[in-house]
Amino acid sequence: MSNDNISIRLISQASSERSIGFVVNLEDAERAVNLLQKEFKNEILSKDISTISRNDAISIIAITGKHNYALEKAISGLRKNKIWLHLIANSINGEHISLVVSNNDVSKALNVVHNQVFGAIKTLNVFSLGKGTVGKALIQQVLQTSESLVERRKLKINIIGVSNSSKSIFSEVGLGLDWESALDKSSETNDIEVLIAKIKTAGLENVVILDNTANKDIALSYPKFVLAGFDIIASNKIANTLPLDHYNDFRKLLNQKNRNFYYETNVGAGLPIIDTVKQMVLADEQINSIKGVFSGSLSYIFNTFSEENKPFADVLMEARAKGFTEPDPREDLCGNDVARKLLILAREIGLESNFEDIDIVNLVPENLRNIDKWEDFESHLDEVTQYYEDIKSKLNSNQVLRYVGELNRNGKMTVSLITCDKGSPLSNLKGADSMIEIYTDSYGDKPIIIQGAGAGASVTARGVYSDLIRMGSVL
Amino acid sequence: MSNDNISIRLISQASSERSIGFVVNLEDAERAVNLLQKEFKNEILSKDISTISRNDAISIIAITGKHNYALEKAISGLRKNKIWLHLIANSINGEHISLVVSNNDVSKALNVVHNQVFGAIKTLNVFSLGKGTVGKALIQQVLQTSESLVERRKLKINIIGVSNSSKSIFSEVGLGLDWESALDKSSETNDIEVLIAKIKTAGLENVVILDNTANKDIALSYPKFVLAGFDIIASNKIANTLPLDHYNDFRKLLNQKNRNFYYETNVGAGLPIIDTVKQMVLADEQINSIKGVFSGSLSYIFNTFSEENKPFADVLMEARAKGFTEPDPREDLCGNDVARKLLILAREIGLESNFEDIDIVNLVPENLRNIDKWEDFESHLDEVTQYYEDIKSKLNSNQVLRYVGELNRNGKMTVSLITCDKGSPLSNLKGADSMIEIYTDSYGDKPIIIQGAGAGASVTARGVYSDLIRMGSVL
Repeated sequence: MSNDNISIRLISQASSERSIGFVVNLEDAERAVNLLQKEFKNEILSKDISTISRNDAISIIAITGKHNYALEKAISGLRKNKIWLHLIANSINGEHISLVVSNNDVSKALNVVHNQVFGAIKTLNVFSLGKGTVGKALIQQVLQTSESLVERRKLKINIIGVSNSSKSIFSEVGLGLDWESALDKSSETNDIEVLIAKIKTAGLENVVILDNTANKDIALSYPKFVLAGFDIIASNKIANTLPLDHYNDFRKLLNQKNRNFYYETNVGAGLPIIDTVKQMVLADEQINSIKGVFSGSLSYIFNTFSEENKPFADVLMEARAKGFTEPDPREDLCGNDVARKLLILAREIGLESNFEDIDIVNLVPENLRNIDKWEDFESHLDEVTQYYEDIKSKLNSNQVLRYVGELNRNGKMTVSLITCDKGSPLSNLKGADSMIEIYTDSYGDKPIIIQGAGAGASVTARGVYSDLIRMGSVL
Repeated sequence: MSNDNISIRLISQASSERSIGFVVNLEDAERAVNLLQKEFKNEILSKDISTISRNDAISIIAITGKHNYALEKAISGLRKNKIWLHLIANSINGEHISLVVSNNDVSKALNVVHNQVFGAIKTLNVFSLGKGTVGKALIQQVLQTSESLVERRKLKINIIGVSNSSKSIFSEVGLGLDWESALDKSSETNDIEVLIAKIKTAGLENVVILDNTANKDIALSYPKFVLAGFDIIASNKIANTLPLDHYNDFRKLLNQKNRNFYYETNVGAGLPIIDTVKQMVLADEQINSIKGVFSGSLSYIFNTFSEENKPFADVLMEARAKGFTEPDPREDLCGNDVARKLLILAREIGLESNFEDIDIVNLVPENLRNIDKWEDFESHLDEVTQYYEDIKSKLNSNQVLRYVGELNRNGKMTVSLITCDKGSPLSNLKGADSMIEIYTDSYGDKPIIIQGAGAGASVTARGVYSDLIRMGSVL
């Protein structure tokens, strides 16, 4: 090369001496290959050299004045963003590092390396599926705190898109405060495959998919997001309550692809319940049982009904009017939501459980379960009141009713209406608070108790936001 | 080199062309340097080449059949273990990676790279300062779970040494179940500098210092550990309650040197209090105040005294007999321990506070504060009983006493004996449980409550163990 005045920009040869890679200017490439072929004619004939290959579509990224720590960060960022490094070389003082990447990847790679190495500002590119109360509150929170996040944490969260049940908007530079009207006016599809393709084409780093829907199809699409290299945060509980095979396969995929999936709000909204359980499992603290009031709406209903002298139907309609229950409160009363939370915790502690394994007491009286529409059900509320009056009349003055989920290490899981004595932790619940008791080996029969507002759009959005910030610290 | 039959084992030249590094066999080194000096005589004269330097004491570590992900892990491990990489080179297919390190570092480097790349088994090398009840319980826990940890988490925790108030033992391969008698028989010093030198000489990876003492000198030595490249886990609260300048300097040092310091057990033993507060701060959830019963012993004393019709002194002596209090219970009664916990939380939420800023109500009656020895104080217990009888007599039947620490975002911190109405969360405390209420912006006037056994050697050791496992996942 030297004899023919071809300057070698970069060279890297690992100690096996099995191959040597170097970079020359594009205008010299043809000449360089010809020269090598001529020079090594005999070696090629004798197969001492198997191939001389040429790749024109590459770029060099040079990091100067930084040490090996920068290299580690750069490589880590590039790997997370699925960018292949053709060659790596450094100068002997470590202050000059060169990375060779494909031209296709170079702009994304530059972003990644720049942000990683200079710790300048890390950007999360977030696509929000769902703009219900939680999704909307979350997006507003992100947009409102955007400047302070950049300033205090060097973290920039771009909302690159939002979809609802019929359409979507997308902007690779990030949406502004007018995102809602933009979504209203949009005519773009919300098809998952199309969205994934769009995001991939934009070549964005650190893409996080936010699922604030309760949509099963979306939950079933999580593997697609992971395969595309995205991380996931969900308040949607469905992915964690799908049949065990699916759950385990998805866990395996996450692990294989080294992607993150956060879902702290699946149980107890913003309360640190899943994380506490995860930490205990991580530290091999054996959890023997978990028991609690998992539903804010049912907490409110039975706290009020036990405390006050009001017909059950009045308490129920009050809770509905306050927005504590679903529009059709039977979705709360049937107990499935509590059961789903229980199942999620059961799987966290390693139980191989399915939804069908849970013994659920449906709070809708049996003879009223076949009514289809809420409007029709409403005309039977007197019967519901009578049903709960009968139950209440059997309590003594020292007892209250609580709708409790409980799981045991042996696999038994129940969701049922129980009576508890006044003075017990569960009896002390107030308002719409949730409370979880965790019984472990070290703590014996004195549980760790976590209590607080465990439902509502604002605290759920807070919890999702907390997951986002945490994602920002690991990506 | 080629013309003179000197084989180049590895070469790396970054794209600046400002330096080029390569490795030849040691027997060729002299000849190679001479050749270069001859060849580049003119360039050296004209200063186009500034130096040709030679380093004989290097080794090549070759990673074959692994991709760039392996390189990231290897570099990350080497950096954490303070091993400098002279040169890095890879083959173009990425399946061959070579790292050049100093001979001095090569055996440590090989361990690190092997463990990092093959994810074989990560080893934490733990030195335990202190073998009191917590330290001892922790060491036993580690030794007992050692096999299951390796099997299930691919994490090996070696207890490489233990020190008590007068001496120490050290074994770079890890202590066995007979460590206590070995320590008894030992005549080795517990001097911190000597211990650090010993650990450094052994060339161990991932060294974690465990401080289960209540020793101030040890807390003051933390910067030395960090400078030696060690991480720290402490149940000792002192480092976090030293004057603010020291606290901030140490934080800065940790950050600079990229070392970890975990101390979850400083408040509420194994309860997830510090971590919950940290997560909230990380997620920019504004914490407005924190209030709670932080002391297990004082929880027990006032829960029992409020509930039962017993003289205060009897309750106190009962708590002492059960091991809930210090041998001299005035160390609990003075309130300093509660105040220290409060200060730690205050600093977590960003308050620039010092111990002196806390308003502490000392539970020892004022006229008895000058008594020196506990034995002398004991003879005045009737007066203490009378003092608390007077306080109790002023309560109505719906009130109970609690010794509560409270901090406010505005910087106000108090530790005092308060009356609370029955039915309030604090009034519901039982036994020796701790309870912390966290009031935040999103949760408004409904706090997040965390409650459970907040003291005792076994749950504290559990918490330290949990910190250790967590350390294993970040190192």
